[in-house]
Amino acid sequence: MEYRIEHDTMGEVQVPADKYWGAQTQRSKENFKIGGHLMPIEIIRAYAILKKAAALTNAELGVLDQEKAELIARVCDEILEGKLDDQFPLVVWQTGSGTQTNMNVNEVIANRGHVLKGGQLTDKKKFLHPNDDVNKSQSSNDTFPTAMHIAAYKMIVEHTIPNIEKLRDTLQQKAEAFKDVIKIGRTHFMDATPLTLGNEFSGYVAQLNHGLRALRNSLEHLRELALGGTAVGTGLNTPKGYAEKVADYIAKFTGLPFVTAPNKFEALAASDGIVEASGALKQLAVSLMKIANDIRMLASGPRCGIGEINIPANEPGSSIMPGKVNPTQSEAMTMVCAQVIGNDTAINIGGMNGHFELNVFRPMMIFNLLTSARLLGDACESFNDKCAVGIEPNHERIQHHLNNSLMLVTALNPYIGYENAAKIAKKAHAEGKTLKEAAIELGLLTAEQFDEWVNPKKMIGSLK
Amino acid sequence: MEYRIEHDTMGEVQVPADKYWGAQTQRSKENFKIGGHLMPIEIIRAYAILKKAAALTNAELGVLDQEKAELIARVCDEILEGKLDDQFPLVVWQTGSGTQTNMNVNEVIANRGHVLKGGQLTDKKKFLHPNDDVNKSQSSNDTFPTAMHIAAYKMIVEHTIPNIEKLRDTLQQKAEAFKDVIKIGRTHFMDATPLTLGNEFSGYVAQLNHGLRALRNSLEHLRELALGGTAVGTGLNTPKGYAEKVADYIAKFTGLPFVTAPNKFEALAASDGIVEASGALKQLAVSLMKIANDIRMLASGPRCGIGEINIPANEPGSSIMPGKVNPTQSEAMTMVCAQVIGNDTAINIGGMNGHFELNVFRPMMIFNLLTSARLLGDACESFNDKCAVGIEPNHERIQHHLNNSLMLVTALNPYIGYENAAKIAKKAHAEGKTLKEAAIELGLLTAEQFDEWVNPKKMIGSLK
Amino acid sequence: MEYRIEHDTMGEVQVPADKYWGAQTQRSKENFKIGGHLMPIEIIRAYAILKKAAALTNAELGVLDQEKAELIARVCDEILEGKLDDQFPLVVWQTGSGTQTNMNVNEVIANRGHVLKGGQLTDKKKFLHPNDDVNKSQSSNDTFPTAMHIAAYKMIVEHTIPNIEKLRDTLQQKAEAFKDVIKIGRTHFMDATPLTLGNEFSGYVAQLNHGLRALRNSLEHLRELALGGTAVGTGLNTPKGYAEKVADYIAKFTGLPFVTAPNKFEALAASDGIVEASGALKQLAVSLMKIANDIRMLASGPRCGIGEINIPANEPGSSIMPGKVNPTQSEAMTMVCAQVIGNDTAINIGGMNGHFELNVFRPMMIFNLLTSARLLGDACESFNDKCAVGIEPNHERIQHHLNNSLMLVTALNPYIGYENAAKIAKKAHAEGKTLKEAAIELGLLTAEQFDEWVNPKKMIGSLK
Amino acid sequence: MEYRIEHDTMGEVQVPADKYWGAQTQRSKENFKIGGHLMPIEIIRAYAILKKAAALTNAELGVLDQEKAELIARVCDEILEGKLDDQFPLVVWQTGSGTQTNMNVNEVIANRGHVLKGGQLTDKKKFLHPNDDVNKSQSSNDTFPTAMHIAAYKMIVEHTIPNIEKLRDTLQQKAEAFKDVIKIGRTHFMDATPLTLGNEFSGYVAQLNHGLRALRNSLEHLRELALGGTAVGTGLNTPKGYAEKVADYIAKFTGLPFVTAPNKFEALAASDGIVEASGALKQLAVSLMKIANDIRMLASGPRCGIGEINIPANEPGSSIMPGKVNPTQSEAMTMVCAQVIGNDTAINIGGMNGHFELNVFRPMMIFNLLTSARLLGDACESFNDKCAVGIEPNHERIQHHLNNSLMLVTALNPYIGYENAAKIAKKAHAEGKTLKEAAIELGLLTAEQFDEWVNPKKMIGSLK
Repeated sequence: MEYRIEHDTMGEVQVPADKYWGAQTQRSKENFKIGGHLMPIEIIRAYAILKKAAALTNAELGVLDQEKAELIARVCDEILEGKLDDQFPLVVWQTGSGTQTNMNVNEVIANRGHVLKGGQLTDKKKFLHPNDDVNKSQSSNDTFPTAMHIAAYKMIVEHTIPNIEKLRDTLQQKAEAFKDVIKIGRTHFMDATPLTLGNEFSGYVAQLNHGLRALRNSLEHLRELALGGTAVGTGLNTPKGYAEKVADYIAKFTGLPFVTAPNKFEALAASDGIVEASGALKQLAVSLMKIANDIRMLASGPRCGIGEINIPANEPGSSIMPGKVNPTQSEAMTMVCAQVIGNDTAINIGGMNGHFELNVFRPMMIFNLLTSARLLGDACESFNDKCAVGIEPNHERIQHHLNNSLMLVTALNPYIGYENAAKIAKKAHAEGKTLKEAAIELGLLTAEQFDEWVNPKKMIGSLK
Repeated sequence: MEYRIEHDTMGEVQVPADKYWGAQTQRSKENFKIGGHLMPIEIIRAYAILKKAAALTNAELGVLDQEKAELIARVCDEILEGKLDDQFPLVVWQTGSGTQTNMNVNEVIANRGHVLKGGQLTDKKKFLHPNDDVNKSQSSNDTFPTAMHIAAYKMIVEHTIPNIEKLRDTLQQKAEAFKDVIKIGRTHFMDATPLTLGNEFSGYVAQLNHGLRALRNSLEHLRELALGGTAVGTGLNTPKGYAEKVADYIAKFTGLPFVTAPNKFEALAASDGIVEASGALKQLAVSLMKIANDIRMLASGPRCGIGEINIPANEPGSSIMPGKVNPTQSEAMTMVCAQVIGNDTAINIGGMNGHFELNVFRPMMIFNLLTSARLLGDACESFNDKCAVGIEPNHERIQHHLNNSLMLVTALNPYIGYENAAKIAKKAHAEGKTLKEAAIELGLLTAEQFDEWVNPKKMIGSLK
Repeated sequence: MEYRIEHDTMGEVQVPADKYWGAQTQRSKENFKIGGHLMPIEIIRAYAILKKAAALTNAELGVLDQEKAELIARVCDEILEGKLDDQFPLVVWQTGSGTQTNMNVNEVIANRGHVLKGGQLTDKKKFLHPNDDVNKSQSSNDTFPTAMHIAAYKMIVEHTIPNIEKLRDTLQQKAEAFKDVIKIGRTHFMDATPLTLGNEFSGYVAQLNHGLRALRNSLEHLRELALGGTAVGTGLNTPKGYAEKVADYIAKFTGLPFVTAPNKFEALAASDGIVEASGALKQLAVSLMKIANDIRMLASGPRCGIGEINIPANEPGSSIMPGKVNPTQSEAMTMVCAQVIGNDTAINIGGMNGHFELNVFRPMMIFNLLTSARLLGDACESFNDKCAVGIEPNHERIQHHLNNSLMLVTALNPYIGYENAAKIAKKAHAEGKTLKEAAIELGLLTAEQFDEWVNPKKMIGSLK
Repeated sequence: MEYRIEHDTMGEVQVPADKYWGAQTQRSKENFKIGGHLMPIEIIRAYAILKKAAALTNAELGVLDQEKAELIARVCDEILEGKLDDQFPLVVWQTGSGTQTNMNVNEVIANRGHVLKGGQLTDKKKFLHPNDDVNKSQSSNDTFPTAMHIAAYKMIVEHTIPNIEKLRDTLQQKAEAFKDVIKIGRTHFMDATPLTLGNEFSGYVAQLNHGLRALRNSLEHLRELALGGTAVGTGLNTPKGYAEKVADYIAKFTGLPFVTAPNKFEALAASDGIVEASGALKQLAVSLMKIANDIRMLASGPRCGIGEINIPANEPGSSIMPGKVNPTQSEAMTMVCAQVIGNDTAINIGGMNGHFELNVFRPMMIFNLLTSARLLGDACESFNDKCAVGIEPNHERIQHHLNNSLMLVTALNPYIGYENAAKIAKKAHAEGKTLKEAAIELGLLTAEQFDEWVNPKKMIGSLK
């Protein structure tokens, strides 16, 4: 490979001749050969948005040459178009402030800008300086948390929420479609009184609606941007009015309601906004685990399980058992849920271990949050398209269970009391009889009374 | 010990002669000799509220005799006054629906009511039946989650939030009191540019305010009551209008904005409201861990640490090292935070593992939530009273650090550029000199310029 | 209440007149009104063991008067007999080193010893000094971790392991008793090829054996005692030979293989032994969650579930559904497992946050470890006695499922290939036929071949 | 793109013309557009080992044609050489049994083998059948857990352990090199009695040794292989002697002590071996978090922190603060530790949620375990090479702290008692004096006695 020489305040470094990055990026690349997880591209893109906003703000406030600002903005647009994706080789497991990723962006913008202006990468003196121009009025300490909030907010509102809503809407349609399918309920995994299949699905819808509310609530914190705090939150080396204006630009570029954080010290020293958003995602994971489990269990069988619903058969289920079909979308979903909850633990540990003016678990935290938000969105879409839309009741099985259940006896409580009703159920169970047979044999009511009082349709009536 | 004979649908059981509980309570006591953690008294009290509400509603809707309703209400008032606290011997580690605790309450109310009416505990026939009267229009499956929400909501708004606010207010006062105490900042645990001690404390305030907002947001779910859903959410065996009216009574008795859950299937099958509230508490624990750590580290020393603040000396710190004083309130707080985050993991596991119509991890979930809410409130009050109110700056130490820090050099960036500024800092560091000495020796600026440009007071100005 | 005046290096304190504790205990009681969880009695008892061992060692090595040593030992014996249980009022949420609990023990021993020798609690000068005599050659920093290891080791070997083994042995007996009960297997919660009910139970046995091995492995670390390290691990103020001798005494008193920690700096600065033991307990919790889930699911029904085993009916299962029986022991067990895994998270956070020479999350860590070890032991015993011993196959149901399963078709793979076998299963499923009918209709084999090749008894043969 | 038609038991599928995979792989690729995390290549390689072992065993036991076996082995060798890495496009978030990855391997081997024998990918009839030949005597249910154990064992012994040992050895060298560097200790983050810098490092060594022991203990479970259990653990469709022989082959191919699992039901139904290994890795993460934190705190400053050690300056630390150097390797390490602990949570959730004969959280579990094992190994190597080897004492600072500390007073306890010693320390602290000055002023001892008794060198003597 061919190299050129770049330098930073520590000295000279060899950099691949055809790359735009500079000395600091190269140092980090060599110093952190850990894990291989690249800094999420969403963070790089968020950086492009904020670097452009900062450049325009700096120019407007008179601390950056207009031509430089426009050149910076032009490279940022290239980054946003995906043209420079191979220029960001750093991994998550670097400094906890994300400084080297900030410098990676600064260096690529400075060098690419220089080339756009007609210069050579090998020129000793470049038109843009990565620190003095591209990073002007900024620090890693305020840009990285800003990029985190931009990336997280966008991912959640553009990907996670729409896909959860998509699944929620399908479940809502099923709740309506199945509103008259009366079936046996199960509590403690044991037979209980009846409800409709629509009732069950309506519960899933309510769970997701609560989770969506919690997730949207967390956006209140994510919309606050640290930018303008610079090194420790005081805004050192920023011109007056900078913080508000740069947030306005970011809001304008993204079409999202970003504002400057009212307290920059919190915005740098803590990453609680990420903790809060992750908390909402793990709540949704808890809900989706329950929903996906229910669906796989309701679909169990086909002959030796519960089997009250049919789900789409998408692939041969077994390499050894011919003709087997498995609830694979539930499996992918529940694995995703486990991951999201694990990621929340990692995020908590990062969030709690900041010291003084700066939290330095940031790349790990945003890596986990973006993974969780991406996975939940993807899994909801996949579960929706490949499973939920195709769910159908197995009427025969549902009816069979309903007819057999001993818990219909509960309807007799108001007429004969709990203890007498229990006698009927116990006798039927012990002797393998129907409730009606047992009731009549015990002399507690007549056949006519039984038929009038024990009617599944009446047992599901008072609530929908 | 003397016993009397009680019975339930499974047969007869010996119960201590002087206790109001009945057969089912006794069975559970014998069947679950696990751990010894009693069902939290807050749950018993919440049950008293809901049983009273249910009795009055039942009477009003014509399904329960007025005299019986009043008798039930009278016993509930006794429970609320703490007169019957020794009548609830069951532990958390019982059935996951809390059924035996519901029956414990039903049995105590029935038997105590019978005695209040002039009967004997040994009477074969009692005036009140635990299932048919006290539990009328109810099931464990809707009462237990209702008691959970009542207990959790009350604890959070009456204990947790006020105590967090108390600490938040003290920190706010400190932020104002220390607003002119300029000190060196620290990022990456390393010297950085200056800020004020008030700035640092304002960040803590902002963290707690975000956490309080998240905690209040979670109340939206906790205010929904499952009551009226009975066995599986359909409201079987409840009179028309029951769910709304019983929620109104509970709201009235507690003075809190409880409403009937719009979807009873979710309210029984899931415990996501508890998951959400726990998520908010763990976010606060993450914040408080950071705050308490900062305070112990800022107070470290007295001679070989950072030592920029003094905290109250409340007790001899060491059994072997004479005169030692330790940041013990920070230690209690951070241990509490660890516990709250651990409890959240337990709650997540409970929340995700519900099946079909009922979550059966409920006693464990509410046990953990109430523990977390109690601990956080207690720890904030203790930390406030015994530590935060007494925090004072150590001006001498603060000034010493400020004068020495190399990071004041950052103020020179706009004048001489990042790279030249770095040269000054590096030279001063390597040669053990002051920044000013190094700057002048390097010929990058004059003594006058240095004094004008490098002024900590000006370095904290643009943001408060 | 009546008080007497006690003093420590900070001054005078009012102490209840009838209590043996002194000034430092009283201060801690007043400074930490948090949560109300008393320091586990197992820690107090472990302290009695180590204080006695230290006193005898000190006397033997000539740094403590023999009479004082014997007096200390006498009080320690009283503590071990449970006579002084009400003298230890401090909570878990105190200083993270447990210093005040060490001083509580020192003070109670000093004052009780003084009284035993004929003195008065109100004497200004006491025969024993809590620091100079009772705490001689000790620090909280080495005694508290020593007490943790003693308490944890004892609990694990005397309670946790025997009760897990009790359950394991019952499951092993069931594995043997059910070794010929052929039943359908389930993978992905779907019907699969057959195995025996004994096979299933043998898997549970193997899980517990692996967990027991992991738990026993963790004892290797727990047997190392910090005592002798004093304040920071150097053994300051201890006589030569002290560390080894005091460990010998503790080993002798407990009958357990305790040794002095080869590295005292690790023993004070970290609590990894607790982390390791908790890791083993959470592995067992993971296993037991699976086992208890399987058993509740296998017992589900009675008419609309899987129903292949019967479990004991210990209590009426529902307050509204008459005659309902629930898998309540599985529910208690799985709640315990969730708690143990949550406790492990709390312990991890404590373990990772030690600084320099001392971990100060110790009371929280041992509180959680002892809770987990107690709960798992209790839950295994309860699950064993009230559920596992009574498990019986439901032969009728097992046979019904076995006869119906389509996955018996797998036995045909070696004869007609996977794809042809799949055709048979799919046809049988789609048309609601038996495999045999479908096979013959497809012309893939004869009735005789089917009967020879598809034989559940032969399908479980190659492994037991 | 060009396609060819492949089929499976569900029908025909279009597959990219130039890929070796078949219909089932293609289905899974389309059905699981989730997350984009490819199944770890270590699993694919482990599959190559086991498929080769199975083929040779099958041939040897007479159930597979020798030519077929050799062809299968030949393709496996190609996979192990990395020649077919682009043939495994499936993601982690698929079916929880890994069935489609097993089929992906089966299909690639079958099709590549057919081509190696001279056939065309478009041939209707292929020489090798993915199920009947390549998967012979196997199921996804036994091959996937086998591949997990092979991949995990290899990663741990070949990567994780050697790199932890590398760091451990460096720390051990530092412990020896610094054995005479006396410094002040710190407990509760406060000044305490002295020890040597070597003592501190010896504690880190002891922590890692305990962690390594725990990690090695977990290999006992990982060496057990599920292979031979086939669909549900009974070994259906395997020839006699197969399980033992195939494990022997795997042991031979890897040079590692793999054995056939004594209980195949556990090996399929649970993944506790992964839980155990992850538990050991999280224990190491807990230890490494403490070590990396200590090192960053000891290196804090350079002028306003503790500053007792110097660590290598690897990169400019700040984009805004010139000349700043940060403990970036500690930051990468602690982020990795947070991730490993989060991954453990995810693995626990997977481990606890298996049902009946099969755990279906497997791809998620092994993805997390391999990530953890990889990250910990990488981070230890990076931390070692870029930080630990370069750690040096800052003697000036160490001496300054040592001279100033008030806790040297502890050495006086045996001479003047704890309470008098406390008076000295308190007076020195309050009046800003030296201990010696305060001691003499209080008249508690002479200058000569002070100099003799208070000698840091003597305070570290009794233990090394």
